[in-house]
Amino acid sequence: MGEIYRAAAKIICEKGYDATSMNDIADAVGITKAGIYHHIPGKKDLLFRIMTFGMDSLEEQVIVPAREVADPELRLRTIIVNHVKLITSRSTPQGYNFVTIVVDEVAGLTAAHRRKINQRKRVYVDLVRDTLRELKAEGKLRDVDLTAAAFSLLGMILWLSRWYSPSGRLSPEQVSREVTKIALGGLLRESAGRPRR
Amino acid sequence: MGEIYRAAAKIICEKGYDATSMNDIADAVGITKAGIYHHIPGKKDLLFRIMTFGMDSLEEQVIVPAREVADPELRLRTIIVNHVKLITSRSTPQGYNFVTIVVDEVAGLTAAHRRKINQRKRVYVDLVRDTLRELKAEGKLRDVDLTAAAFSLLGMILWLSRWYSPSGRLSPEQVSREVTKIALGGLLRESAGRPRR
Repeated sequence: MGEIYRAAAKIICEKGYDATSMNDIADAVGITKAGIYHHIPGKKDLLFRIMTFGMDSLEEQVIVPAREVADPELRLRTIIVNHVKLITSRSTPQGYNFVTIVVDEVAGLTAAHRRKINQRKRVYVDLVRDTLRELKAEGKLRDVDLTAAAFSLLGMILWLSRWYSPSGRLSPEQVSREVTKIALGGLLRESAGRPRR
Repeated sequence: MGEIYRAAAKIICEKGYDATSMNDIADAVGITKAGIYHHIPGKKDLLFRIMTFGMDSLEEQVIVPAREVADPELRLRTIIVNHVKLITSRSTPQGYNFVTIVVDEVAGLTAAHRRKINQRKRVYVDLVRDTLRELKAEGKLRDVDLTAAAFSLLGMILWLSRWYSPSGRLSPEQVSREVTKIALGGLLRESAGRPRR
């Protein structure tokens, strides 16, 4: 089932959601149009399922592992490294990506579906902000506003889906190290004598 | 003329580019459909003009003032502060924004127009990267990859168009200070004894 979403996501990113027909998706997946409708009742539903698939991945690969980490600094690192990995592992040389769909195509959802997706996004933003709040309480955070800090971090990470190409000069591991270094440098105080890798 | 683009940008951000008709735009602008076609030959052309308008604003309000600053650290600050200001000044409580169109709707352009817009974006990325390169030569930059650093900074700034609302808790000046603090903290070495505002 993941394969259908992946192929649909690819074609939607190339053509834009509104310009993509169920026929295009069937062609991209390599099955008949009837076959597509067997799996997916319609385009709006497909968009919601793609986003749900993206949010499920975020939950499994970023949110759940992060919640298992008690120390807020280590949890912040876990969030950054795992989220960067989720994005770089899904990136293609052409730059289409689940992440851009989840982020960009919210207008195409029904109101009920939009509420569900936005609710799941909020859970993630809250996890990031709560982690920063704990770091502040420990005196490890710079004197920054928690909301601005949380969204600046997310912007840095999510923007990867626009510029990072696995066929480029930087390996996924290198780009993960770079983004982690810049993000932690921007958010944490130096004074703790923390090793900056 | 700016008013037509602003109204068109607003409706495109609400409905999505493909779902927006010239009729919708005429309604939003408050003129007849014939009136719209008098100004704009078609939707693809409108999209290009909106993006050109956005890139003109970036050039006038960010790139030109930054090029006038010889010192790279001050130039970096100028870039951040002016780009944040450009975004926050265009933000609306509903979150539609020229920035999101310029960033998200590139797929809707003709190939020739896409080349022109991408060329202008590259000029800006090069300005940011060259500024970081000068800071590296002066020993003021952290040990970070210049490309990863340039795009991390841009991600942080551009993401503002998604989350910042002028009707929220943070004033444009506050959010500018916060983003500047986080960005410079992430990019510059502390050792220079630079005051962190």
